[in-house]
Amino acid sequence: MKVTTPVKHVLVEDHFWKKYKQIVANEVIPYQWKALNDELPNTEPSHAIENFRIAAGESNGEFYGTVFQDSDVAKWLETVAYSLRDNPNPELEKKADEVISLLGRSQAADGYLNTYYLLKEPNNRWTNLRDNHELYCAGHFIEAAVAYNETTGKNEFLSIMEKYVHLIDQVFGTEEGKIKGYPGHEEIELALVKLFDVTQNEKYLRLAQYFINQRGQEPIYFREEAEKRKKIDTASTWNDEKNINFGLGFEYQQAHQPVREQKEAVGHAVRAVYLYIAMADLAAKTGDSSLKETCEILWDDVVKNKMYITAGIGSAVNGEAFTCNHDLPNDSMYCETCASVGLAFWANRMLRLDANRKYADVLERAIYNGTLSGMDLDGKRFFYVNPLEVNPFQHVRKDQQHVKVERQKWFFCACCPPNLARMIASVEDNIYTQTDDTLYTHLYVAGKVETTLSGKKIEITQSHQYPWDGDIALTVNTGEPAHFNLALRIPGWCQNAVVKVNGQLISLDRLEKGYLIIERVWQQGDSVSLHLDMQVKRMRSHPLVSMNQGQSALQRGPIVYCIEEVDNGANLAGLRLPKESEITSQFKEDVLNGVVILTADGYRVAPSNELYSSEQMELVPQKITAVPYYAWCNRGTGEMRVWIYES
Amino acid sequence: MKVTTPVKHVLVEDHFWKKYKQIVANEVIPYQWKALNDELPNTEPSHAIENFRIAAGESNGEFYGTVFQDSDVAKWLETVAYSLRDNPNPELEKKADEVISLLGRSQAADGYLNTYYLLKEPNNRWTNLRDNHELYCAGHFIEAAVAYNETTGKNEFLSIMEKYVHLIDQVFGTEEGKIKGYPGHEEIELALVKLFDVTQNEKYLRLAQYFINQRGQEPIYFREEAEKRKKIDTASTWNDEKNINFGLGFEYQQAHQPVREQKEAVGHAVRAVYLYIAMADLAAKTGDSSLKETCEILWDDVVKNKMYITAGIGSAVNGEAFTCNHDLPNDSMYCETCASVGLAFWANRMLRLDANRKYADVLERAIYNGTLSGMDLDGKRFFYVNPLEVNPFQHVRKDQQHVKVERQKWFFCACCPPNLARMIASVEDNIYTQTDDTLYTHLYVAGKVETTLSGKKIEITQSHQYPWDGDIALTVNTGEPAHFNLALRIPGWCQNAVVKVNGQLISLDRLEKGYLIIERVWQQGDSVSLHLDMQVKRMRSHPLVSMNQGQSALQRGPIVYCIEEVDNGANLAGLRLPKESEITSQFKEDVLNGVVILTADGYRVAPSNELYSSEQMELVPQKITAVPYYAWCNRGTGEMRVWIYES
Repeated sequence: MKVTTPVKHVLVEDHFWKKYKQIVANEVIPYQWKALNDELPNTEPSHAIENFRIAAGESNGEFYGTVFQDSDVAKWLETVAYSLRDNPNPELEKKADEVISLLGRSQAADGYLNTYYLLKEPNNRWTNLRDNHELYCAGHFIEAAVAYNETTGKNEFLSIMEKYVHLIDQVFGTEEGKIKGYPGHEEIELALVKLFDVTQNEKYLRLAQYFINQRGQEPIYFREEAEKRKKIDTASTWNDEKNINFGLGFEYQQAHQPVREQKEAVGHAVRAVYLYIAMADLAAKTGDSSLKETCEILWDDVVKNKMYITAGIGSAVNGEAFTCNHDLPNDSMYCETCASVGLAFWANRMLRLDANRKYADVLERAIYNGTLSGMDLDGKRFFYVNPLEVNPFQHVRKDQQHVKVERQKWFFCACCPPNLARMIASVEDNIYTQTDDTLYTHLYVAGKVETTLSGKKIEITQSHQYPWDGDIALTVNTGEPAHFNLALRIPGWCQNAVVKVNGQLISLDRLEKGYLIIERVWQQGDSVSLHLDMQVKRMRSHPLVSMNQGQSALQRGPIVYCIEEVDNGANLAGLRLPKESEITSQFKEDVLNGVVILTADGYRVAPSNELYSSEQMELVPQKITAVPYYAWCNRGTGEMRVWIYES
Repeated sequence: MKVTTPVKHVLVEDHFWKKYKQIVANEVIPYQWKALNDELPNTEPSHAIENFRIAAGESNGEFYGTVFQDSDVAKWLETVAYSLRDNPNPELEKKADEVISLLGRSQAADGYLNTYYLLKEPNNRWTNLRDNHELYCAGHFIEAAVAYNETTGKNEFLSIMEKYVHLIDQVFGTEEGKIKGYPGHEEIELALVKLFDVTQNEKYLRLAQYFINQRGQEPIYFREEAEKRKKIDTASTWNDEKNINFGLGFEYQQAHQPVREQKEAVGHAVRAVYLYIAMADLAAKTGDSSLKETCEILWDDVVKNKMYITAGIGSAVNGEAFTCNHDLPNDSMYCETCASVGLAFWANRMLRLDANRKYADVLERAIYNGTLSGMDLDGKRFFYVNPLEVNPFQHVRKDQQHVKVERQKWFFCACCPPNLARMIASVEDNIYTQTDDTLYTHLYVAGKVETTLSGKKIEITQSHQYPWDGDIALTVNTGEPAHFNLALRIPGWCQNAVVKVNGQLISLDRLEKGYLIIERVWQQGDSVSLHLDMQVKRMRSHPLVSMNQGQSALQRGPIVYCIEEVDNGANLAGLRLPKESEITSQFKEDVLNGVVILTADGYRVAPSNELYSSEQMELVPQKITAVPYYAWCNRGTGEMRVWIYES
């Protein structure tokens, strides 16, 4: 098993991502800070910081919010940590330090740290792992602490969390007297691997392994826990015994069977991918081939059977869950922003396990489409649910009230905006991985990477106008000549690529899992040029995806397109894109902050007087204009479709 | 306003309908009798007859069932009444007489008759009109009593119901001291018009008018009633205050505004059409042009914006309700059998108001498609919900659990099977209406009609193999020559009709609202032949029906077709019907009790390895076979589609 490792020193100077990173730094982080402190007018209060103040004995009042309210603070801190990497901001860092200090003061003497239980049910810790997110919140704080330590070098946050993890390690395990439980919402497992990475303390790895291995073992822990809970006085808000796990059984939290026996992605989509991330991480750290194989099976199941073309996942609002193969409704789905963010993180981990283009293709699909659509171009409004089709009746149908037709300022359950923010703020972590002698370039994001290959320090820069343009230039800076491999991903969407080193054509005949491996003794200033043909593709769905038949989606490079009412008029389902129409792409500086738009000659079916008719349909010529899906709903509300009927 | 009236003496000798009527007589009525008496093994108990026994003091026990359980008894009695018209059955009539006698013994001294309130909440009569169906049940018993009186000439049942209506008339009205309420589920209004028809007592017509006129007046009665109910002790099972009217407001029961201001069909589909039936009836009886105009507006709204091609109505399970224009999902809809039965009844009443083909076309669409699909060919199993598309994931999705993929033996809420049974048992009531001098033939159902036209007794027979064959022969029997008009509907689906009288071509140049009016002095034995071309039509949906674009539905004559897995293999969405393919129709004696099946050369999209691909799709030739929609799921379970993707 050839595992690659992350590359730390990556600077983003990309026109596309730098703008988004600045939006996160300048808009999202301050906005979320206000949200956490209840300073936003006309918005659902968060109370998240106040909960900690009360827990620290520094304020009076009662806990307010969801049982996972703490995690919003954690995700904010994690985003701040990433943002501080390339946007030093002493004032922001001071704020973060103060929050961390507050966490420390809220922490119980034994290390416990969760404001819901500290304030609401101090005697009921660990009594409802199924629903109440204690370990999930701990996981998010661990991720934040690791990130904060890595960026700032400061130890306080890490110490707080190590103290908490020490307690968790004493409480959970297969040993006599310990609770044989595991989280109802996975998250701590992957966080513990990160904590191991930064501390090299194997206890954390073992604890992660315990949680993964115990999951789904008979007797199912949550069943026993529910029995015990009948004997205690608990006020859990999530404990609706009429609709446990939304009727999905223990598949809801992937606890229906031991993880290595799981062959199909089931249940709550975010929970699922968080689990799979940890499984991939553990497979990479421990060489556990059964875990790796399970990850591969689950990966194929998701991307071949259950993933939207935008990299959205979760076909049903009930349980925010996977359903079954090829069930991919475009208007009533969930496609939670968090789930696509999780899918991107999972792809990142699978790439470390196996440098295979198929993972990078999905990673790229996720970050340019179904995640980014979760935020408007200003970073001020957010989607929780990312539909692929918005119809005029979306407002009326009670079963589609979860689908908002415009982005919202904030959410009572505010998991998605901070999750997307941390993904953007750490986008550089996805570009490269490496072995001792090979640098894998998974994504084309302009900027600079510094690392050591074959014992020599090297620096490589990328410059280009990706994703709008497929001409990519890389320059190798290595003081003295260095012998190493540069592995370049030739994206799956690209049928015509041309690679040159110092102007010399390189054959693409032998790709290794989709990567061109250029082995040479690199000289200072060597240049690599990569031309990725960005011809517009008409994507069609597998014939089992019943809702997408007779339709195509337009994709150019990694960008999936949609049609919007603002460009094409109402009734987008009445448009027809002839199979033979030429599609023109053109970069428009003034549209949606600068994007390539697509246009084609098409038709509109003329409305008839009848609901059903055997008359020949009258087709009226109409220009069809498509814009990047991620940027939809930035010019007012209206209909939108990814899948366009062909004629 | 030219109103036509029903024709009483119609005998069905039609190969298609006679079979169904026999199934109702021989299977459905005995089966429902067992159900009402809890004699069916492994089936949800009904307890409906037992409730009456307890109410009569002849049995011990408690009320069991829904608040409208009584109505199952009523619909059974009504079906029996129709069935006895042409299937005399002394034993069955004796059973019915016994039930009627039991009703009389259950009736309170003041005339009140509802077992839920008599047994469960004797002090709370009329306190929850919004939810609890007292007036609805009364309406069904009135309909049954009228039908039983008309068939048998017996008066006992009618007397019981007149006594009850007398009480209702004393309780409800705008006068001081009366309750200004109206039913939460319309039904009694149309029943009162029937009661007026048979008794000519204008009090009943006035009471119906009161209910219609009061509906939706401010202050909304149900709001006031709910306030009052807070002060009483009531155990109503339907009174879930968290989800009143399924979040649809008073639109749920069409009480959001006065009926004459209603311009759009809203809310619970069955409630809606029952209301519209009474409005049409009152318009016809009283010449109320504002009611007539409202009916016409609502009719057009339903059939031009909200009706499935099968004549299904109700696009959403939430509230079993209409949603908005063109929202016609094929797999998650409601399309309750009762709603299409109600639509057929409404069409029947609109035809009396205005002999316009557009009503008969929908009547015919309903009776041959979306109603009949509610029962299997043996009359032993029933659909409550009639989907137009069944996918492999129908079982998995929690939001589609209301859609059963095979017919069920019985239902806890057993409204549909008896409703369909009474429609079939009285199908002859839809064939003709008349004025003094004109006989309108709305449907082609073989058999005999006797009536008086221009003062002369005449008899006309229809003979043909409709709906499989469009050659229709009519023979006029009139002892002496008679001058009258025979009005023949030329169906909207027929573009080529040929009519001859005694072999002489009659011009179709001047149709009156879709009817050919043949005025002549008819002689004994005059023959009329009508050839209705039954070329298969490819029906397409209005471009605003987003889910049906790129697809066509096959229709031949009045019959809408579907494709089933049993004939075409799995993955019906992967089939392609080329626009230019010839469609062959062939009568098959041995298929589905004898139907015309359709076949065409088509293709199947070959499965690919990828979920999304820009590769050209591989099309494999495949014969496509379609069968009548009403007969689907009579050869095992599997996928089904009405709308077929074209290529």
